[in-house]
Amino acid sequence: MKIIRHPQPTQWVEYCKRPVFDTQEIFGRVKPIIEAVKSGGDRALRRFTERFDGVALENFVVGELEIQTAADRVHEDLKAAIRLARENIRKFHQSQRKDEPVIETSPGVSCWRKPVAIEKVGLYIPGGSAPLFSTMLMLGVPAQLAGCREIILCTPPNSQGEIHPAILFTAHEIGIPRIFKVGGAQAIAAMAYGTETIPAVDKIFGPGNQYVTAAKQLISLDGVAIDLPAGPSEVAVLADDSADPAFIASDLLSQAEHGADSQVVLITDSEKLLQEVQAALKKQLPALPRAEIVEQSLQHSLLVLTDTVDRGMDLINAYAPEHLIIQTINAEELAARVINAGSVFIGPYTPESAGDYASGTNHTLPTNGYARSYSGVSLDSFFKQITFQRITAGGLQQIGPAIEVMSAAEELQAHQQAVSIRLQQINEELSNG
Amino acid sequence: MKIIRHPQPTQWVEYCKRPVFDTQEIFGRVKPIIEAVKSGGDRALRRFTERFDGVALENFVVGELEIQTAADRVHEDLKAAIRLARENIRKFHQSQRKDEPVIETSPGVSCWRKPVAIEKVGLYIPGGSAPLFSTMLMLGVPAQLAGCREIILCTPPNSQGEIHPAILFTAHEIGIPRIFKVGGAQAIAAMAYGTETIPAVDKIFGPGNQYVTAAKQLISLDGVAIDLPAGPSEVAVLADDSADPAFIASDLLSQAEHGADSQVVLITDSEKLLQEVQAALKKQLPALPRAEIVEQSLQHSLLVLTDTVDRGMDLINAYAPEHLIIQTINAEELAARVINAGSVFIGPYTPESAGDYASGTNHTLPTNGYARSYSGVSLDSFFKQITFQRITAGGLQQIGPAIEVMSAAEELQAHQQAVSIRLQQINEELSNG
Repeated sequence: MKIIRHPQPTQWVEYCKRPVFDTQEIFGRVKPIIEAVKSGGDRALRRFTERFDGVALENFVVGELEIQTAADRVHEDLKAAIRLARENIRKFHQSQRKDEPVIETSPGVSCWRKPVAIEKVGLYIPGGSAPLFSTMLMLGVPAQLAGCREIILCTPPNSQGEIHPAILFTAHEIGIPRIFKVGGAQAIAAMAYGTETIPAVDKIFGPGNQYVTAAKQLISLDGVAIDLPAGPSEVAVLADDSADPAFIASDLLSQAEHGADSQVVLITDSEKLLQEVQAALKKQLPALPRAEIVEQSLQHSLLVLTDTVDRGMDLINAYAPEHLIIQTINAEELAARVINAGSVFIGPYTPESAGDYASGTNHTLPTNGYARSYSGVSLDSFFKQITFQRITAGGLQQIGPAIEVMSAAEELQAHQQAVSIRLQQINEELSNG
Repeated sequence: MKIIRHPQPTQWVEYCKRPVFDTQEIFGRVKPIIEAVKSGGDRALRRFTERFDGVALENFVVGELEIQTAADRVHEDLKAAIRLARENIRKFHQSQRKDEPVIETSPGVSCWRKPVAIEKVGLYIPGGSAPLFSTMLMLGVPAQLAGCREIILCTPPNSQGEIHPAILFTAHEIGIPRIFKVGGAQAIAAMAYGTETIPAVDKIFGPGNQYVTAAKQLISLDGVAIDLPAGPSEVAVLADDSADPAFIASDLLSQAEHGADSQVVLITDSEKLLQEVQAALKKQLPALPRAEIVEQSLQHSLLVLTDTVDRGMDLINAYAPEHLIIQTINAEELAARVINAGSVFIGPYTPESAGDYASGTNHTLPTNGYARSYSGVSLDSFFKQITFQRITAGGLQQIGPAIEVMSAAEELQAHQQAVSIRLQQINEELSNG
């Protein structure tokens, strides 16, 4: 890990930089896939599935039998753990539901908002060595809570044409019946434009590799909404010498094991802690099955020594990490100063793992500095807010003249007329009445 | 206008289509502008301002004196109208602020969300013949309410290098001091990447022509957030024969005057109303200064006769209009059935003009069918929601074992270890204590 002591604020920009990918090259590869699925439908999906997943599939639909047998293949301990996590995620996301009052902005002028679930959503769960059933929970539970009418899931098959049973079990547990064995950019295109088998949706959620991310960005230019732009996962830990170096090392390692491009940062005001964390990393690392990935990730990771933890918090707000762990004496006070972060973990017994799996918060979070302007996935992500208004005759008399003046000044006379014609009628009725 | 009687649901898709633009061609024109501003900064801005706005500007910053004299050039009636609108917009948007409770998802596991204002936002107000001070209100009032630390405004100068006084007055009224005379794609690029004069922001808001829209889409691929993808403005009116045909005609015309590509739709179960609205349109149209634009827009607009208003509401949910006006006997009941719309106007005295200017709702809304998945601009648009969690030793004992099982099943052993190492220490302390 790179050690930086007492960086000047002018240097922060440099340290806050994320890896840059050649997006043009990736867009160039993904565009033809999207076009092919858009025009070729299921036939194109079959071709890409054979090419990228190494399996020739006639039918993408996961059948009832597959789902039933999946449950038998998942260990009871894992089932219980998934159910505990589901309940916590449900509780926290349910608490995000709220109704807003009707506001009378002027007498007779009533305005309100109503959250309405997005009708059709598509969830994407990547393949790879390990089954990301946790992501299935993070996307599926709020989609169900919101009451989306159609929720579909796309996830790539293995070379035997199968989906991992833990994914199928989890999808079944949360009530998502329509599952398709399609992955990669082709799955994103299928959900965006629809094929003979896969229905088009209004919004697409879920993580993925650079091709999936690029596909999501490209289809979003066509008006299909997406959850978040995505980049490599990140953690920043802010600690003072009250912190346990072994805990911190374990948190840094758990981020580093996500991938060689993971971003891992420790910021502390304690040289002693900095040394101890380094030692703890050396001790814990060799036992990890993913040690090779972890080492690659740590090579570009940072240990930063600042004058004070307050100064460290300033640096964190400039960096805008996806995950922020605060392990200091005054962790609560520092947490109140967070401006830019996706999710914040306070105190020694709050590892990032908790939020990744089972505490109840969502683990789909803004990376790459996007925490400056984006929120993570929440119940809100599955709703749109529709505004409503109802104006009485008296209400229009209150605000109508202002509208007439403003629309005339913007040279929109038909807008003005829509008010004038009504005010005139109201006045006539009054004088007749 | 095109009249369609009793369309079958299979035909709806056709009627719900929006005009398609050659976005590739527009992206191709806009990309070099963005690149030039990114690399050339102010010098590039000067060049584009001379080329597109026809004025050579040394300094883009609007000075104090310009702002002060602007107030003298705005009529007192307009000032009063702007202030009334500002108050209503403020009241409605302020009501959207809410704090959420801390949720104990499991004993000792506390999770919550905190809305934090986006630090730096850029507002864009287009130029053209008329000054869109109403849009200034719709973006500036919630940005101020949210407490964004830095709010900047870009708007193109006229050929004399001036900004319309009504824009400057409104910006000053709502407390936005940093105004730059830059427009078009070059303004969007400047706010995304920063120049010597214009600071880079985290999120960009505001309407614009196809070049501005394309620039917003392109910079959003680079991680700068935007409010909404935008298309031509739209209204759908749902009416039965209790409605006043003159009111409806005035609403259709006020949408049509926005531009030749505006989308205007009337859906009714009454042939009589359909005929009367046509007559009213003919009567009202000639007096409008923008009659030519209106006529072009009406050419591709639709009058649809459905069997019932309920069936009409189904068609509206399929169309997902930006604005929906309901003028029927049972308007409230129908409003409760809206699934896809940006903003809904209920009853005879609620013209779209009210929401465009002064009722309090926001007029920056999803067009082009995006109402299926996007909300209009609101106070929320200027915040991100950060999640927080704090777990006690006892809390980690509650959920830790589930996290261990799940992370092991996802083959993320470092995630597991971050919990195990803590549980071990908790157990040691318990047995020592």
